Amino acid sequence: MKLLKNKISEKLIINKYLKKLNFKNKGTFDFENDGAYLDLKNKHYKLTVTTDSISEDMDFFSNDDPKSIAQKITTVNLSDIFSMGALPHSYLLNLYLPNYINEKWLKSFSNQLIKIQHKYGFYLLGGDLSKSNKLIVSSTFFGSIKKKIEIFQNKFNLNDDIILTGNIGESKIGLEILNKKITSNTNLNQYFIKKYLYPTPCKLGPSIASYVNSMKDISDGLIGDLTNMLNGKYGALINVNKIPLTFKTKKILNFKNNFGIENLLNAGDDYELIIISSQKNRNKILSIANKNNVKITLIGKIISEKGIHFDSHLDMKNFKKFDHFS
Amino acid sequence: MKLLKNKISEKLIINKYLKKLNFKNKGTFDFENDGAYLDLKNKHYKLTVTTDSISEDMDFFSNDDPKSIAQKITTVNLSDIFSMGALPHSYLLNLYLPNYINEKWLKSFSNQLIKIQHKYGFYLLGGDLSKSNKLIVSSTFFGSIKKKIEIFQNKFNLNDDIILTGNIGESKIGLEILNKKITSNTNLNQYFIKKYLYPTPCKLGPSIASYVNSMKDISDGLIGDLTNMLNGKYGALINVNKIPLTFKTKKILNFKNNFGIENLLNAGDDYELIIISSQKNRNKILSIANKNNVKITLIGKIISEKGIHFDSHLDMKNFKKFDHFS
Repeated sequence: MKLLKNKISEKLIINKYLKKLNFKNKGTFDFENDGAYLDLKNKHYKLTVTTDSISEDMDFFSNDDPKSIAQKITTVNLSDIFSMGALPHSYLLNLYLPNYINEKWLKSFSNQLIKIQHKYGFYLLGGDLSKSNKLIVSSTFFGSIKKKIEIFQNKFNLNDDIILTGNIGESKIGLEILNKKITSNTNLNQYFIKKYLYPTPCKLGPSIASYVNSMKDISDGLIGDLTNMLNGKYGALINVNKIPLTFKTKKILNFKNNFGIENLLNAGDDYELIIISSQKNRNKILSIANKNNVKITLIGKIISEKGIHFDSHLDMKNFKKFDHFS
Repeated sequence: MKLLKNKISEKLIINKYLKKLNFKNKGTFDFENDGAYLDLKNKHYKLTVTTDSISEDMDFFSNDDPKSIAQKITTVNLSDIFSMGALPHSYLLNLYLPNYINEKWLKSFSNQLIKIQHKYGFYLLGGDLSKSNKLIVSSTFFGSIKKKIEIFQNKFNLNDDIILTGNIGESKIGLEILNKKITSNTNLNQYFIKKYLYPTPCKLGPSIASYVNSMKDISDGLIGDLTNMLNGKYGALINVNKIPLTFKTKKILNFKNNFGIENLLNAGDDYELIIISSQKNRNKILSIANKNNVKITLIGKIISEKGIHFDSHLDMKNFKKFDHFS
């Protein structure tokens, strides 16, 4: 663990707020070394590695609750780990701290990290602290996965199923409520804002890893991430009626004239999975999802015509006028 | 590899400047996935992990040559990897890019990275791109080391040798020349500034890993890093005459009245190794260093009296008045 240069409290930050996050793993040297050892022990496993950063004024607001920031930086990374079919193992934390960060902030931030670490089973391996004029939280996550499993994001065949976990759009609606672009009643506001501030990853990936052709989490909206997966090679035919939305989301879409489903498909940190898999594995995947209590929806299939197509020949701008979503 | 949100050139940055850095390693998925696989294959090896960041106006100047920035971010991390006794394997790059970063900058930066990767033998595993108002370059490095080897930074015994590789102070003098706190002749200026802008790591660590008790690279000056190693447990007795300085450094110390050796001991990115080892391994370590063409100097020993002590009972402020360094 590296120290903040010229800042008195660097040792304090590490000793009082970060050291407890190593869960006493020996390879971390209690953060007294410049590096750490990472050993999976089981020789049939390999590591998956992913890294992501969130920044003040871009991915969160300056005065957001530190708990929300801890939730976001772990979810964005855990979501990648799970979507690669792996289980979380450990992580590094790079903190760029402005002067306004105080002990209260650090306490709340680190306590939320501990909760999440316990929930998903991983520990802090090390990191580095820097001074900054804006708050940036960056993290590198390590997952473990059997050596023989390899999850691609853009390898699949014609007529493969396109499947979604969970529901989409709720985080985006929360952000728009905070941005005052949508207004609703207090209860709904609180519900959606919480979805935006405290996103959670979908854990299904590792259980279905052997049965999918490709898998990716949604961090840039369904259309953005599906487009990345298609990679200009094939196309997708989406059944508009099947796009999974909660009853609360449909309420918002039905009553707000300036906000349609196109807004939910084009952006948003859903952290649900897009699964592309062979039709012959459909029942297996559905049954594993059911067993894990994860909602799963077949929304379309891979076609030869490039791009994303909708079964009803709908204009994106008109989506919200249709009450397909019941 | 993650994309810069809302910036047109994100795919271009990856495809034109970063993709070539993966040296076609399969686990990187050509940076088209959100993560990468990392597998050491040899079951007798484990990973070492270290992470470090450098920021505009703190660790480099805004208009520094991108080659220098590439050199610094790799050296600071490679130095940690080598000092843990490991060989570099791969790395992640987190780039926080302000608007002024253009293709010329990216070309120069990535070309320097390729050179360094070839020199030390490692490849780019993945990373993430973000927008920022200041340039920050962060990197996580992976090294490989035999499972049974473990290098501590603060485990040693009374009377152990304290050994330094190379010479210290040159990078710090370069910085002070750039800061206009030291002036010298043009040739010397250029020499020292180059030492500051293009630091290189000491590669000796892996060869001597089995013979040391503790090892650490100098990134905060000899006194700062040795103090960290001592960790309030033992003390160090340093032979002032033995502190390794180049002839050029002695020239600066002899002719400048406002700059003494204390400035060289208290700060500076030397990236040389502090080795603490049993006297019985002294000859072995010296002979390995000789074989590897690395200058090595026994500068002191571990004593029971806490703190760092100098054999000549010299006041730090008076160091420069003594011509011990010939």
